[in-house]
Amino acid sequence: MGKSAAEKIISRHLVTGNPVAGEQIAIKIDQTLTQDATGTMAYLQFEAMGIPQVKTDLSVSYIDHNTLQSGFENADDHLYLQTVAAKHGVYFSRPGNGICHQVHLERFGKPGHTLLGSDSHTPTGGGLGMLAIGAGGLDVAVAMAGGPFYLTMPEIIKVELTGGLSPWVTAKDIILEVLRRLSVKGGVGKIIEYAGDGVKTLSVPERATITNMGAELGATTSIFPSDEVTKEFLKAQGREECWQEILADEDAAYASSVTIDLGTLEPLAAQPHSPDAVTTVAELSNINVRQVAIGSCTNSSFVDLMRVALILKGKTIHPDVSLVISPGSRQVFHMLADNGALNHLINAGARILESACGPCIGMGQSPPSGSVSVRTFNRNFKGRSGTADATIYLVSPETAAATALTGHLTDPRTLGEAIEVEQPHSYPADDTMVLPPQADPNKVSVRRGPNIKPVPVKEPLSNQTSGKVVLKTGDNITTDDIMPAGAKVLPLRSNIPAISEYVFSGIDPDFSKRTKELGGGIIIGGTNYGQGSSREHAALAPMYLGIKAVIAKSFARIHKANLVNFGILPLTFTDENDYDDINPNDTVLIEDIHQLKPGVPITAAVTETGKEIRLAHDLDSRSIEIVLAGGLLNYTKNREKETSQNN
Amino acid sequence: MGKSAAEKIISRHLVTGNPVAGEQIAIKIDQTLTQDATGTMAYLQFEAMGIPQVKTDLSVSYIDHNTLQSGFENADDHLYLQTVAAKHGVYFSRPGNGICHQVHLERFGKPGHTLLGSDSHTPTGGGLGMLAIGAGGLDVAVAMAGGPFYLTMPEIIKVELTGGLSPWVTAKDIILEVLRRLSVKGGVGKIIEYAGDGVKTLSVPERATITNMGAELGATTSIFPSDEVTKEFLKAQGREECWQEILADEDAAYASSVTIDLGTLEPLAAQPHSPDAVTTVAELSNINVRQVAIGSCTNSSFVDLMRVALILKGKTIHPDVSLVISPGSRQVFHMLADNGALNHLINAGARILESACGPCIGMGQSPPSGSVSVRTFNRNFKGRSGTADATIYLVSPETAAATALTGHLTDPRTLGEAIEVEQPHSYPADDTMVLPPQADPNKVSVRRGPNIKPVPVKEPLSNQTSGKVVLKTGDNITTDDIMPAGAKVLPLRSNIPAISEYVFSGIDPDFSKRTKELGGGIIIGGTNYGQGSSREHAALAPMYLGIKAVIAKSFARIHKANLVNFGILPLTFTDENDYDDINPNDTVLIEDIHQLKPGVPITAAVTETGKEIRLAHDLDSRSIEIVLAGGLLNYTKNREKETSQNN
Repeated sequence: MGKSAAEKIISRHLVTGNPVAGEQIAIKIDQTLTQDATGTMAYLQFEAMGIPQVKTDLSVSYIDHNTLQSGFENADDHLYLQTVAAKHGVYFSRPGNGICHQVHLERFGKPGHTLLGSDSHTPTGGGLGMLAIGAGGLDVAVAMAGGPFYLTMPEIIKVELTGGLSPWVTAKDIILEVLRRLSVKGGVGKIIEYAGDGVKTLSVPERATITNMGAELGATTSIFPSDEVTKEFLKAQGREECWQEILADEDAAYASSVTIDLGTLEPLAAQPHSPDAVTTVAELSNINVRQVAIGSCTNSSFVDLMRVALILKGKTIHPDVSLVISPGSRQVFHMLADNGALNHLINAGARILESACGPCIGMGQSPPSGSVSVRTFNRNFKGRSGTADATIYLVSPETAAATALTGHLTDPRTLGEAIEVEQPHSYPADDTMVLPPQADPNKVSVRRGPNIKPVPVKEPLSNQTSGKVVLKTGDNITTDDIMPAGAKVLPLRSNIPAISEYVFSGIDPDFSKRTKELGGGIIIGGTNYGQGSSREHAALAPMYLGIKAVIAKSFARIHKANLVNFGILPLTFTDENDYDDINPNDTVLIEDIHQLKPGVPITAAVTETGKEIRLAHDLDSRSIEIVLAGGLLNYTKNREKETSQNN
Repeated sequence: MGKSAAEKIISRHLVTGNPVAGEQIAIKIDQTLTQDATGTMAYLQFEAMGIPQVKTDLSVSYIDHNTLQSGFENADDHLYLQTVAAKHGVYFSRPGNGICHQVHLERFGKPGHTLLGSDSHTPTGGGLGMLAIGAGGLDVAVAMAGGPFYLTMPEIIKVELTGGLSPWVTAKDIILEVLRRLSVKGGVGKIIEYAGDGVKTLSVPERATITNMGAELGATTSIFPSDEVTKEFLKAQGREECWQEILADEDAAYASSVTIDLGTLEPLAAQPHSPDAVTTVAELSNINVRQVAIGSCTNSSFVDLMRVALILKGKTIHPDVSLVISPGSRQVFHMLADNGALNHLINAGARILESACGPCIGMGQSPPSGSVSVRTFNRNFKGRSGTADATIYLVSPETAAATALTGHLTDPRTLGEAIEVEQPHSYPADDTMVLPPQADPNKVSVRRGPNIKPVPVKEPLSNQTSGKVVLKTGDNITTDDIMPAGAKVLPLRSNIPAISEYVFSGIDPDFSKRTKELGGGIIIGGTNYGQGSSREHAALAPMYLGIKAVIAKSFARIHKANLVNFGILPLTFTDENDYDDINPNDTVLIEDIHQLKPGVPITAAVTETGKEIRLAHDLDSRSIEIVLAGGLLNYTKNREKETSQNN
């Protein structure tokens, strides 16, 4: 049986496991990328592993998120990232050089290679025929240290594109159609692979718009084949040598498939507050608009912005609309300035923002209260714009430009004859704003601002542990309960000692102080403990406070993995009635921890009552090794030591 | 005896008083400008006056300060400002159109006219031969309502410029030299008038750099003559008809004079933390720099940025330096994009920010902690950059560009042959981003976001008032004590009910609640009550809470004027010992308020003890009328009514 493009890349990179949907596998990572919002923790963790130089083919650290710099923390983070990159073999893309995914596509991505990025839109690289996956900072740190990436082998879904797009209909409308059909949960545990004769009608940046927003399907990643179109793009970027053909076999089997006839699509919009609440723009034409925002990793390529410039040329935006445009990269910005298109935008009244993520991640440009903002971005969650009661519509750049002129949601087909913009045959390649790592790492001293603290590392677990029950929770505790976010707490993300003071602060303001005074302890949880956001700080900060184990009725999947990664035992009651027999301030003793084996329960005792409790877990042998080592950092460090001793 | 240029404009605009230094005068205001940080309160106050249309020749509302829009408040303010301008005859310069002072110079300023602006750098207009003065929002509101501007006639100081500048020495270096000689207090109560044969060697934007930073001398304003150079500039802007010659008479007398031989100047820098801590750049060349910021109302004209572009052309900024550039206006941005200069900046690695005030007012781009930032701006106060321990140096654009290339403070003369950039003979005039007011005001409904509340207006004072002593303070209470600033309180500046909850919150957290419950009251103060910042909220918010009088040992000048402006009686003890006989919770009765006369004390009684206290004041008859009317808003409203009844 043949293989799909994704399967081919996975088999070539397979380290362990059987690549059958649902099985645990590990794959070699060729490239990594980080951005500055998640990157500081990734590099702090990389440093904690004690590995001098990254072991990937290429690792790039981008600055694109915290570019407003309201306060010293952002600039300090940038300086840390610049110096830690220089020291450890990582390329550093300076602020102003552009959005990580756009720049990576232009200058670094390689068909057939794997890319792990600490940003959920890393699958943008799938537009080039890469297997590009978003992950947590520690996963990326481990990949930089040479470790494989562990995942459950996803199902492969085929999206067959047939025919070609009508005038004024775009790649954005294709992915909105996919979202309309599959929903924001439709991609969970899956890889979306594009195929069909429609593929060859789409340029690499158009494909990247589609794979980028595969993140909104919940997909592990999305991928296009690497074909002649890919080759032409790489050639135009002066990188033809990076090309290789990656095509699905004719007889590849897919878990399921969807067919989209491109010719039948029309301009679409995702309505508030979900990327899959998709309808036609034409149906929304009575909606008045206060803001139009063009840019983001989804839609800020050269051709995207050229089309916008040609639509706006010689015209003036509607007096009620604030139009903001962020070019996706310095390359795009340079090209627009060079060919006069930027002046069409300036003359029409656009506000030109720095080449960065900007308003897409809520960094500025919050719209007026109760207003409508039309955006070429990828997410329209309530409140993400920074204005709680604003409503956001996601559209193509063409729809956005048409809307900026009229002040209401406008189908770009009303603009008349379509605007043709060719993909350039040659892009100006200038990587001067990407600093290569220092040849001599000893010459670099890593600069840590006062808010950047080394990541705390746990000791390996002792064979027995005993601790007070510092908190007993009910069911459905979220990671927001465990580690709150918000304006007060987020700037502390590079500072675990400081952020740990907020652990459980919404539920139990004394938690942090009490736990530290006791030298740590044990948490008792109900069902679905740790649901919600995947933030690793919800395990890292409790670990810093000395939490040794969480004993719960059940765990949410990602949080359980995070507990393992930070050396905290995630244990469940074999008899849920035992939950009632452990109370706050009881002392719990857990013995024979070093004997932990897959599928075998262990015993704990409540010291005060003498009651014995059987505790289960569902850790595989690798996870057991990780938790016993005190977490993934130590585990990786130990394996690194073994490897270098064996060499 | 002849007149100086400033005296000529003042006599032509004199409404009352004798224009002799130290005398109280009032002048007619031809034009006003506001920006968005101070403008909301100015227009709320204008609305409260109930006057349908502004009575100035021209009033412009600019958006240039709060352009980051982190949260709904800024965009709501913009929308309020846009609609209130449309309704009341005010031109509205949209966000992205540029910095108020730069745009006003380009498109609206007129030699020989008066300009009152709610921004301290309004004297930029002096570069065009305007009498341009910065003032509080209420003063500007009164001017829009047709009222004259009251001020103490300043002394006129002559700064005689002789010869011409050497290569690489600039207008910024001239004003830094003036600051070095006169200090930041040297201009208080004075107008700085430039004269001498060196004047004709300076273009209007260069003159504007000098008058702009006259604010840092503490001067009432600064002014250049309006001559052939002025005419050429206005002609190039398509506004030749606005020109008139304004030259000082040969025999004009000045209070004092200073002579600067331009040929002897060299590149200068203001060192931390004061604009007058000036030394040569050459002496600072061992200082390493992490950030260079180019822009602001001081130094972001077309020629400024062209010189920067030509210095950076074909080069790359130092890897340790983040270079940010904000074009001063959309006109400047357009011209740089049009002639290719913008691409020199982008290619060199500059981060291009929106045409706005940006980092100059601490709106983003805070440098790393403990670092050096070199800026073409006008203020280098500690902490103003957003990074408490950063150190800021103020320099010319040429010095800034040279520094961006080397990573240390660099005298631009080391760059070799000077770069010549001519003033353009024709500027592209495009005012599409300035919205004219609506022809039919009834068609405009003013839009107020949830954070924008009408400005509270007081009733006229009753003939007698009685209230509890709600607070008794010590000496030297500052307006920061009365009305704190900071990130939590500042966004409430358009919302007096909300901001009033923070009155005295640092000293007495219950003050606001208690005072509201009592329906107001009386404050007892020590000496120098209300020193510090001129913020009008320190009177407006206590007025909202119902404060009827402040009885103190003495007052700071500006705060006393603000109390009058908001209808609060500022009274002093004729016998300071009486301070000891009034205590918190005492009830104070003040009678015969309507009989208040200049120089005549009045009597108050403490109800509980029956003790009578003689209270003085130093209000002139106009101030008495204002305070009795319940404040300047009512006073202006009443006079407006009288005027229209008489017509």
